[in-house]
Amino acid sequence: MEKKKRIVIALGGNALGNTLPEQMAAVKITAKAIVDLIEEGCQVVISHGNGPQVGMINNAMAALSREDAKQPNTPLSVCVAMSQAYIGYDLQNALREELYNRNIYDIPVATMITQIRVDPEDPAFLNPSKPIGHFMTEEQARNAEKKYDYIMREDSGRGWRRVVASPKPAEIIEIGAIRSLVDSGQLVIACGGGGIPVIRQGNHLKGASAVIDKDFASCLLAEELDADYLIILTAVEKAAIHFGTPEVEWLDDLTTSQARKYIEEGQFAPGSMLPKVQAAVRFADSKEGRTALITLLEKAKDGILGKTGTRIHQ
Amino acid sequence: MEKKKRIVIALGGNALGNTLPEQMAAVKITAKAIVDLIEEGCQVVISHGNGPQVGMINNAMAALSREDAKQPNTPLSVCVAMSQAYIGYDLQNALREELYNRNIYDIPVATMITQIRVDPEDPAFLNPSKPIGHFMTEEQARNAEKKYDYIMREDSGRGWRRVVASPKPAEIIEIGAIRSLVDSGQLVIACGGGGIPVIRQGNHLKGASAVIDKDFASCLLAEELDADYLIILTAVEKAAIHFGTPEVEWLDDLTTSQARKYIEEGQFAPGSMLPKVQAAVRFADSKEGRTALITLLEKAKDGILGKTGTRIHQ
Repeated sequence: MEKKKRIVIALGGNALGNTLPEQMAAVKITAKAIVDLIEEGCQVVISHGNGPQVGMINNAMAALSREDAKQPNTPLSVCVAMSQAYIGYDLQNALREELYNRNIYDIPVATMITQIRVDPEDPAFLNPSKPIGHFMTEEQARNAEKKYDYIMREDSGRGWRRVVASPKPAEIIEIGAIRSLVDSGQLVIACGGGGIPVIRQGNHLKGASAVIDKDFASCLLAEELDADYLIILTAVEKAAIHFGTPEVEWLDDLTTSQARKYIEEGQFAPGSMLPKVQAAVRFADSKEGRTALITLLEKAKDGILGKTGTRIHQ
Repeated sequence: MEKKKRIVIALGGNALGNTLPEQMAAVKITAKAIVDLIEEGCQVVISHGNGPQVGMINNAMAALSREDAKQPNTPLSVCVAMSQAYIGYDLQNALREELYNRNIYDIPVATMITQIRVDPEDPAFLNPSKPIGHFMTEEQARNAEKKYDYIMREDSGRGWRRVVASPKPAEIIEIGAIRSLVDSGQLVIACGGGGIPVIRQGNHLKGASAVIDKDFASCLLAEELDADYLIILTAVEKAAIHFGTPEVEWLDDLTTSQARKYIEEGQFAPGSMLPKVQAAVRFADSKEGRTALITLLEKAKDGILGKTGTRIHQ
């Protein structure tokens, strides 16, 4: 029997909806696409973003501390942990239900609370750039700076938002537990929201005020699990060069050196397609035979079958 | 080599503190007591309550939906899920640090998001009795009843509080993943807050508006993992009969039939020592050789060594 292809799939936090009812609808669609891959004979490991969700939880905890003076402000790392449960619980249920609906009863689903170590010297800490949470007036923003030590930025005339650092992932603390479950055939959800960012201080792991990019966290997870594929889901079927011009060219198949050339040319938008292509190149370059695929959720199966998406390999 | 004694330890939610700084201090003390047991050669599995924490999270999510009309009220089951991450993240870090401080590097720590199935016909649903969240005025309580379908009760002249059902646990959905990690030697935190309560509807698991008693959930976990010991931690070193009278008698060693007799006599306070003794009896009766121990956190090691606590066995 051929060894099952092992796939790490990175779901976007935005695609999971902004509210719980939206999330419950989104996870059903996600579960169908993932069980399609399982029916194709793949072994799947899931990671996901948490942009809207960690912002919402952060807002809820801040609202609580405004109402209840005994409750201090909740660090962002704790909010990331809570977002892993908030998303994982719904996602694991939707997956279990979809597996059962297709008479697959032998693949248990599990969500692991996952911490990821980051480097305190990561230059991202000097330049917080990831906006989270809701928009504020300038006055509210100045108060948040004073009260919570937040870093606030005006965002394109739409108001002020908190920005946090987005450092690179250095080490998945719970990789042993994740590997053990994956190796025993379970469908594992891990590294949610890019993982809970922590900094090592001796034997202590201190929560960092940051949100790790989920594509880079997924890349590290895929490397650590020796996956064959990293699938990075996005809002378009394929990456493109000359995007937004009449010369737009959709990319089917790229070597990592071609992809790096396009990165240098500035073909991919920072904060959008660029980190996805960077994570894809990093994964494909990490070992021969590893392939990264960038596509839409509903095209993931066709992508694995070689029919669509942007494939990046050595 | 003698087989390691397998212990499921049930931590009280109240003992974990009402705020994050309190929790961070509490988990350090808890971690020391647990690593003491590990150094005695025991294999430990941890479950915990979440009374104050799930109430706090529920309040935060309710505060958010008051501030942001787009955010509907968050079901209690989702709040329980979030409390598992809120507590598990801090607890797993404190345990890892304590293990490392004692030069134990080969026991990974993992927190599992855990759902527990309850029976929709459980009589507890007809008589919600577990108070959660903060106190309200009668007017606020009436509004909460109308707006959220909450059941509100006046609590001994102190104000109104939401009460929820506390059904018995019937099945741990993620037991396969938990067993797999425990069997591979990991230190697992599972069934937090009594588990996320769910009701089976065909292949779907629907969140239930309930909080499962953590002592009964821990008992089920201990049975399913074929544990040798169930340690139920509480605020006293031993259970007692004639408690609060001059004839008080602290209990060292009890057979399950003696314990059942005391239960029938009404020796143990409902909502306090009674469910602990009931869960202990259930565990000890489930198989020969199984022992339940009720004691203080800081006496857990002495309890396992037979020096203190209330031991219940067949």
